[in-house]
Amino acid sequence: MIHFECDYTEGAHPKVLESLVATNMCQTTGYGNDEFCEKAREMIKSLCGNPVADVHFLVGGTQTNTTVIASLLRPYQGAVAVKTGHINGHETGAIEATGHKVIAAEGKNGKISAEEIEQIYNDHHSDCDHEHCVQPGLVYISFPTELGSIYYKKELEAISATCQRFGLPLFIDGARLGYGLTAADCDVDIKDIARYADIFYIGGTKQGALFGEAVIFKNKSLSRDFRYMIKQKGGLLAKGRLLGLQFAALLEDNLYFDLASHANRLALKIKDALVAKGVELTCPCSTNQQFALLSNEVVEKLSKDYSFSVSPSDKEGYSNVRICTSWATTEENVDKLISDLNKVL
Amino acid sequence: MIHFECDYTEGAHPKVLESLVATNMCQTTGYGNDEFCEKAREMIKSLCGNPVADVHFLVGGTQTNTTVIASLLRPYQGAVAVKTGHINGHETGAIEATGHKVIAAEGKNGKISAEEIEQIYNDHHSDCDHEHCVQPGLVYISFPTELGSIYYKKELEAISATCQRFGLPLFIDGARLGYGLTAADCDVDIKDIARYADIFYIGGTKQGALFGEAVIFKNKSLSRDFRYMIKQKGGLLAKGRLLGLQFAALLEDNLYFDLASHANRLALKIKDALVAKGVELTCPCSTNQQFALLSNEVVEKLSKDYSFSVSPSDKEGYSNVRICTSWATTEENVDKLISDLNKVL
Amino acid sequence: MIHFECDYTEGAHPKVLESLVATNMCQTTGYGNDEFCEKAREMIKSLCGNPVADVHFLVGGTQTNTTVIASLLRPYQGAVAVKTGHINGHETGAIEATGHKVIAAEGKNGKISAEEIEQIYNDHHSDCDHEHCVQPGLVYISFPTELGSIYYKKELEAISATCQRFGLPLFIDGARLGYGLTAADCDVDIKDIARYADIFYIGGTKQGALFGEAVIFKNKSLSRDFRYMIKQKGGLLAKGRLLGLQFAALLEDNLYFDLASHANRLALKIKDALVAKGVELTCPCSTNQQFALLSNEVVEKLSKDYSFSVSPSDKEGYSNVRICTSWATTEENVDKLISDLNKVL
Amino acid sequence: MIHFECDYTEGAHPKVLESLVATNMCQTTGYGNDEFCEKAREMIKSLCGNPVADVHFLVGGTQTNTTVIASLLRPYQGAVAVKTGHINGHETGAIEATGHKVIAAEGKNGKISAEEIEQIYNDHHSDCDHEHCVQPGLVYISFPTELGSIYYKKELEAISATCQRFGLPLFIDGARLGYGLTAADCDVDIKDIARYADIFYIGGTKQGALFGEAVIFKNKSLSRDFRYMIKQKGGLLAKGRLLGLQFAALLEDNLYFDLASHANRLALKIKDALVAKGVELTCPCSTNQQFALLSNEVVEKLSKDYSFSVSPSDKEGYSNVRICTSWATTEENVDKLISDLNKVL
Repeated sequence: MIHFECDYTEGAHPKVLESLVATNMCQTTGYGNDEFCEKAREMIKSLCGNPVADVHFLVGGTQTNTTVIASLLRPYQGAVAVKTGHINGHETGAIEATGHKVIAAEGKNGKISAEEIEQIYNDHHSDCDHEHCVQPGLVYISFPTELGSIYYKKELEAISATCQRFGLPLFIDGARLGYGLTAADCDVDIKDIARYADIFYIGGTKQGALFGEAVIFKNKSLSRDFRYMIKQKGGLLAKGRLLGLQFAALLEDNLYFDLASHANRLALKIKDALVAKGVELTCPCSTNQQFALLSNEVVEKLSKDYSFSVSPSDKEGYSNVRICTSWATTEENVDKLISDLNKVL
Repeated sequence: MIHFECDYTEGAHPKVLESLVATNMCQTTGYGNDEFCEKAREMIKSLCGNPVADVHFLVGGTQTNTTVIASLLRPYQGAVAVKTGHINGHETGAIEATGHKVIAAEGKNGKISAEEIEQIYNDHHSDCDHEHCVQPGLVYISFPTELGSIYYKKELEAISATCQRFGLPLFIDGARLGYGLTAADCDVDIKDIARYADIFYIGGTKQGALFGEAVIFKNKSLSRDFRYMIKQKGGLLAKGRLLGLQFAALLEDNLYFDLASHANRLALKIKDALVAKGVELTCPCSTNQQFALLSNEVVEKLSKDYSFSVSPSDKEGYSNVRICTSWATTEENVDKLISDLNKVL
Repeated sequence: MIHFECDYTEGAHPKVLESLVATNMCQTTGYGNDEFCEKAREMIKSLCGNPVADVHFLVGGTQTNTTVIASLLRPYQGAVAVKTGHINGHETGAIEATGHKVIAAEGKNGKISAEEIEQIYNDHHSDCDHEHCVQPGLVYISFPTELGSIYYKKELEAISATCQRFGLPLFIDGARLGYGLTAADCDVDIKDIARYADIFYIGGTKQGALFGEAVIFKNKSLSRDFRYMIKQKGGLLAKGRLLGLQFAALLEDNLYFDLASHANRLALKIKDALVAKGVELTCPCSTNQQFALLSNEVVEKLSKDYSFSVSPSDKEGYSNVRICTSWATTEENVDKLISDLNKVL
Repeated sequence: MIHFECDYTEGAHPKVLESLVATNMCQTTGYGNDEFCEKAREMIKSLCGNPVADVHFLVGGTQTNTTVIASLLRPYQGAVAVKTGHINGHETGAIEATGHKVIAAEGKNGKISAEEIEQIYNDHHSDCDHEHCVQPGLVYISFPTELGSIYYKKELEAISATCQRFGLPLFIDGARLGYGLTAADCDVDIKDIARYADIFYIGGTKQGALFGEAVIFKNKSLSRDFRYMIKQKGGLLAKGRLLGLQFAALLEDNLYFDLASHANRLALKIKDALVAKGVELTCPCSTNQQFALLSNEVVEKLSKDYSFSVSPSDKEGYSNVRICTSWATTEENVDKLISDLNKVL
């Protein structure tokens, strides 16, 4: 069985493991107050071009989203997000469990627009009974989105400007940030992300680390007492050093972005093969997740040797299939898949 | 200024006040453990035809919805409701504040269908990653709905059967129950409601009481330790007797239903006047709330003498207007409104 | 059966009821945005000598404590209170249900001291792992306390100064405020309370109203968006006018304080009778609640005609008894109780 | 600087790392549904002598405590724990953040007794207003305790029997389970723990793993839908395999217990040295944490070369010092510490 169902089927990039092994018996204090974390924080601040950023490390994405959002909102506020946003549908109500509604916008291709944000904000505040409704308190977007698409520069500019105008912090979920930033059609870089976002994170789990997400706050006024929040939400790793070590390894010599480029290149190979056979892509994109509409017969045949994420579609007899590559995907496996796709399509 | 903006612009029906005055200096124990509450509980059980029902009294609707829903759900479960449901949009995230997502269905005319409930349930449980999603834990409907419409017998039967099949408690918000049950086209009675619902309430606030909602659980297995919940959520009225006294007064000699009929009759008079002038009703119905599309010019003219709930509409130059009657609305005021409507339309 | 078990066994003072009856058919807008509430707010601001105060009305004490505290704290903060504080032991974990720990101090006679607050604050912040502990976020005291005692001027001054020094808002639970302020040994007035507290409330439920608590914030920066909080926590009464009307009636011609004085005078009569018979008072005080250690035999005899709050004591064969008077207690009933006490003691 | 301040200053035991490296490029499905986790689950069930146990893996202790407790309690229930329990004072209110009070008992030497549990339960249920108080919903103990002490067989038997009698699940925090079970004076084994506890966990973080806690439910009726809870609370590790792999490595050939024995032996060496010099131990015990009262002068001198946990003591001029050994502590470092202790004491 060859796995294409997600981007976390293997362990970590060998350089990450090497670093863990090499430092294993060094003694450090716990909870991220160690020199390895400090080094990684400095690398990240430099990469983002923001010397006053405040950097924290957490273990996983749901944990990060929950901790950041619960920290930013007042009790009666909600997080504005697109309907397909991870916090809206794939975190078992983690945001609601901290007391906050996700205010879902329709969006398009997995993206929310500045106009939608403005509409939600204005609808709320023009309602004479607005205190009977959840107040928009921040905007959450994912880069790339849950459907593999990316926001372009002018979209990010517009969203960021709208957020600033309304005093809504903009939080960018970067669980797959590298895959987005190295996409062929991407016209922003990490310094842009760091400028547009009030808070964002660099995902490690899906991009070469064993686990770990690095959260970057634009400045310390946004992250006041954030370590209390991490501890309370169960995310303060005792051996915090593991997070610092992994990010330091990934950010050295551009490794993080090289791994993402590799995954994107293989994903496009698969995309091209699908398109050549006339397969409909449900959200055409250039990152490591490709969503295609395949007949149930095709899915069944392929499922003997490959695993994908499969979900029902509106088209009779067809399913939505997500095919994922990652830093660890081999060219050999991709070629084998393409060859088999060509046989069954 | 004559008020038509909601059904709680006056105090209480005189019989309710008389009862409060007459018993004012009687001493009772607190928190609903008194003979007045006991009497009202017996009246309600008898009215519902359910001697094993468990009846509790709370002060208001949002409080009731929150306390009941928080009591029924496990932490990872959500409440299925139609998009326009009160808990989804008009309670400042009270449900989410107790940790639970409202799972919103599109619905039609303010109503959710049995098919939508089935779809939501099946979509959830057929997802191989269902533990990443909020589990449907109960179904919430309002009777009548927030748009004034009512569920018909076969709709309720289907919803109730679907809920039972999937083990989802059915909770009916009856903040305006009387207005629904006395509607001209209503084909169910309170005994039906008591049979279809696992939990429902008889609204007092909007139907002749100063305040108060009577929650009826089908049996005590559903309401285990419910008084702890009421206390924790701030709803255990110290002078609980006030709730028992009011419900006893309202349920005597059919007063509760007579008051609702009165309001419905006046609402239909207004509806007829609107329809005669070709005004579009956004959700035609036969209860005490009438929703109409009026030009902004008309709204402005009427607003000099009358107050309504007004909200933006999709039609350029028009607004959605809610006109509400209640047990306290006078025929005289309604006639005056109709006469003025005829002038400006 | 004559009730001395609490101060909410009757309805409301006749003047309160009269006001409700007189205004019953006046139409007003809902949720406290009416002229009656506005009038009461002005009376309260004037009474407190604070024209920039922000006044809100809620229904009950637990609701008020929860809404205020949840509004003031950040998610990782807790409320510092004495062990016997109402929020610590008698609200079914309402504060915790909003996510916050009650940080309980030992206290003495129901009172926390400025020194204890300072200790808690310093212990927290001197701990190098303070982010592993709940951060003190506000101080909650009751005036009078749950044991009937009152804070004296120099105690309040010290507590208030300590709170200000550490940036901790001081919240005074005034569910029985009048009974405290009219106590024989009380050396502060309501203007002092309004100056020492950042937020406090004037209790109506236990002092002549059917229900209702008036919350006073020192200024609007403390109460930002507080109406959202009230709505979310289920405390925004639809017919908010009922709260304004009751407070306006109670605050006219000093009625509120006269009623409290009456109750205190009767309580002292009972206290004197107990002391004369050598009964031990567990927390000697001069307000409307008297706590005495009575033998189980005495309790049993008295319980035939009187109801009290009884709880177990550490002394073998004895129970703690709370005897409560109120604005509604009659001299006749008190004299009868004293006569019977004299017989059985 | 030599670290004795906690038991998580190094990475993982080499065998754990070897296993991670060896399997790094194997593809598996995520979230713990892989063969490595399956293997570890089988090893644990066998070790516990309970084939119907349900085993789940989480990342850290606070996360585990929060997820388990939030899963077991109804909204109005609290967790009974000793005052010094980890959930009461060192998790930034994580339990309260899920809505539940920690009901703290005084305890002795870090241990709660069966009698205290009985008292708390009976006091609650004999209170006529018990619905105004948080209902005891489970009992939480740590083995060994936060002060290094262990419960003896007859204590555990009594606690377990009391819990069963009252229907309170018993949850044992085993963050340092191995250190407890291999203590010289320990008279229970892991099969006993598995029998006494309804839920307990085997701590990996502090005992040789990079991170990880294995939670064991006595049967599946206790763990219903627990994976939803883990996901919601942010603890469902994407690469769940890392947890299975580590536990499988630690539980092979008794490694887990051998490492704990090693740490205990070194801790006792330090203890003996302290006692020989007449140092007062604040909670004498035989596990890997030793708590001693040292003069501030001694602390200052030692702190040049060693790090400890230091907290204020009630004795003027003295501090409480915690000295921790672990699976990774070397005999050489311990001997050096003892030699230096002997010089400065």
